[in-house]
Amino acid sequence: MSTLKGNCLVAQSGGPTSVINASACGVIQEALKAQEIDKVYAALHGVAGILNEDLFLLNEEKPEEVELLKVTPASALGSCRYKLKSIEASEGDYKRILEVFEAHNIRYFFYIGGNDSMDTANKVSQYAQRVGYELKAMGVPKTIDDDLPITDHTPGFGSTAKFIATSLKEVGLDARVYDYQTVTICELMGRNAGWITASAALAKDKEDDAPHFIYLPEIPFSFEQFEADVKSALQKYNYAVVAVSEGIKNAEGKYIAELGAENLTRDAFGHAQLGGVCDVLQSYVQKNICKKVRTVNYSSIQRCAAHCASLTDNEEAYMAGQMAVRYALEGNTGKMVGLIREAGPEYKCTTQLIDLNDVANIEKKIPREWVNEAGNFVTQEVIDYIKPLIAGEVKLQMVNGVPRYSRLEKKLVEKKLESWNVK
Amino acid sequence: MSTLKGNCLVAQSGGPTSVINASACGVIQEALKAQEIDKVYAALHGVAGILNEDLFLLNEEKPEEVELLKVTPASALGSCRYKLKSIEASEGDYKRILEVFEAHNIRYFFYIGGNDSMDTANKVSQYAQRVGYELKAMGVPKTIDDDLPITDHTPGFGSTAKFIATSLKEVGLDARVYDYQTVTICELMGRNAGWITASAALAKDKEDDAPHFIYLPEIPFSFEQFEADVKSALQKYNYAVVAVSEGIKNAEGKYIAELGAENLTRDAFGHAQLGGVCDVLQSYVQKNICKKVRTVNYSSIQRCAAHCASLTDNEEAYMAGQMAVRYALEGNTGKMVGLIREAGPEYKCTTQLIDLNDVANIEKKIPREWVNEAGNFVTQEVIDYIKPLIAGEVKLQMVNGVPRYSRLEKKLVEKKLESWNVK
Repeated sequence: MSTLKGNCLVAQSGGPTSVINASACGVIQEALKAQEIDKVYAALHGVAGILNEDLFLLNEEKPEEVELLKVTPASALGSCRYKLKSIEASEGDYKRILEVFEAHNIRYFFYIGGNDSMDTANKVSQYAQRVGYELKAMGVPKTIDDDLPITDHTPGFGSTAKFIATSLKEVGLDARVYDYQTVTICELMGRNAGWITASAALAKDKEDDAPHFIYLPEIPFSFEQFEADVKSALQKYNYAVVAVSEGIKNAEGKYIAELGAENLTRDAFGHAQLGGVCDVLQSYVQKNICKKVRTVNYSSIQRCAAHCASLTDNEEAYMAGQMAVRYALEGNTGKMVGLIREAGPEYKCTTQLIDLNDVANIEKKIPREWVNEAGNFVTQEVIDYIKPLIAGEVKLQMVNGVPRYSRLEKKLVEKKLESWNVK
Repeated sequence: MSTLKGNCLVAQSGGPTSVINASACGVIQEALKAQEIDKVYAALHGVAGILNEDLFLLNEEKPEEVELLKVTPASALGSCRYKLKSIEASEGDYKRILEVFEAHNIRYFFYIGGNDSMDTANKVSQYAQRVGYELKAMGVPKTIDDDLPITDHTPGFGSTAKFIATSLKEVGLDARVYDYQTVTICELMGRNAGWITASAALAKDKEDDAPHFIYLPEIPFSFEQFEADVKSALQKYNYAVVAVSEGIKNAEGKYIAELGAENLTRDAFGHAQLGGVCDVLQSYVQKNICKKVRTVNYSSIQRCAAHCASLTDNEEAYMAGQMAVRYALEGNTGKMVGLIREAGPEYKCTTQLIDLNDVANIEKKIPREWVNEAGNFVTQEVIDYIKPLIAGEVKLQMVNGVPRYSRLEKKLVEKKLESWNVK
């Protein structure tokens, strides 16, 4: 074990998920037990909170509220979209982070997030090594998009997939009750990777069940094929339900959402903020196929539906946090906790260490061979891949008919440094 | 008990709910047990299916699939939007219905639906009496909107309210994670009655929790007040979440959705088909308040989320179906099964008979005194009214991580009459 003693800091970044707090809980509860770790700090709003020295102590939170983090959706520690530039371009940020760490004797840093956050954890680890500040920095992966490379899958995805499969099954039943033709367009998240949209396939038991077609961002979208697809479903089943990714593009690489969106904006990372694919397709269907079209845009519902979380995902998220602490105590830094699907007929998941250099800013997409020839549905491989990830239900504490979720006090500790202004 | 012997027919109409099949199951299982009733028919697609003589036998369905109807969302028997005109205007329809009933010796008719369906059940009962056809026709209420009069509440509402309260709590947590100001606009169903939208209030525990404001169709909507409301929430909490009914109108009575909707259509009853309120408000917020706005349109997700159904609602829906059969066997006709909230500190619900003449086409709205003075939130009375209706969780049979729902064979019986063409 490590001889490095000091405090630890945990922070969250990027978009929330149903289980990112389960990972935080894993980190916190494991760190609270560790002999090498004295105080367990959290930064409010990710790396922005570190720069601002907005820290609070988990040691001072009620243990039952910390325990409730296991089942609480969204980012209880607060999130940010602040992206650290390269060390060369913005050394001041890195210097400041280590000043804050030093002021609070933080020697272990756990950053829970997606692609960009893994990049941040990596750079902080590298900078600490460069300037000789003793620090173990670990990335704990989360993303509903499941687009991180190397790791078999990512905490957060399974719960979104379970909710989508469940809700789409219900919306599919809802869509088929009438005696006239109807089209239902379900819009799902996943800008460049289609895993969430693909999970709609798990709603389907029989051929006539929804969804009838799935349109992924990996496959160029054609209105002609879409029209033929929808018409064929209407003819066979009298209703058509399609699942479509927010990020589908035409053969020229233009987002379908952009064809109709008036208010397209870009987020802090320059990513196009999408939305409105279903509106574009609705207009198309009404003009060319059928007047009765309903759109179902799952929006943020899909990433925080903890009432329908996957127990498997939830337990793995906790394990990823827990293992991050253990790996750090063993002396590791600049690594991410990955998930391994063990070989064999029974699903079994263990962890591995992945070098953050191999992860940062690489997206895992659905391979072409996991999509059918027509490009309008996924193959059995995708279903087999997702099925174990959505298994099991999380037990919630219900109060007055709704789940009780964690509420932390987040009382900020006294600042020791000059103030800093994160832009 | 009744000496009237024969077959019975059950049918569903209007929009689906999470528990309309629980009511059907109550009717079916009670009818299958009844000595006076021989065969239990269902009409495919409501009254349209009766006119078309599209009938199938529940006696021939697998009992486990009938049992599964208890937890299955949407209308398993099929629904329709076909509206019978008055007896004077369209006597042919009524004559045809009784011909179909006579051909299959149907003497008990149970129609599960909302306002329009109660009207249909009433007219069929009246016409049968007029022409001397012995028939007991009963209405079994369902509507997520909870807008039927006299009955304390309506099966279907509690489950939608529970899902909305749950999901809005989650979306509220999701909406508050960032370190910059965000506005989230949640659009909910309920064209003229605000009960569903009001149920968002049950997501809120503390003042800073979502939703911060609730805009009901009963209260004229003012953009000025909306802007002041949202700005005050942003100032106090750094985020604002509002719940808004699809049917809000301005002081002149114009739908807010119509201010921006391009594709406004009218359904078969001449009701304006709404949608897009959240888009209109999103544009307004982006122009006048804050660039970061997310819309969450619950669309059909909210009316079929059986995975989050209320056990209370589910059991009452079953009871309503069961009691409809018992009341009919006692000789009643032209009545609806209403729900009574018994006086006392503990919530207890029993049934009553309501004359269908007193129900049809009357809408129960939220009284002005159950809305705060500013018109932007509901009072404690609404919360106390809804709270017991969302209590308890339904146990689902899970297969591969998703709920298993009923699948009926619906093998149509041989027709005995000439064909008929429902327009």
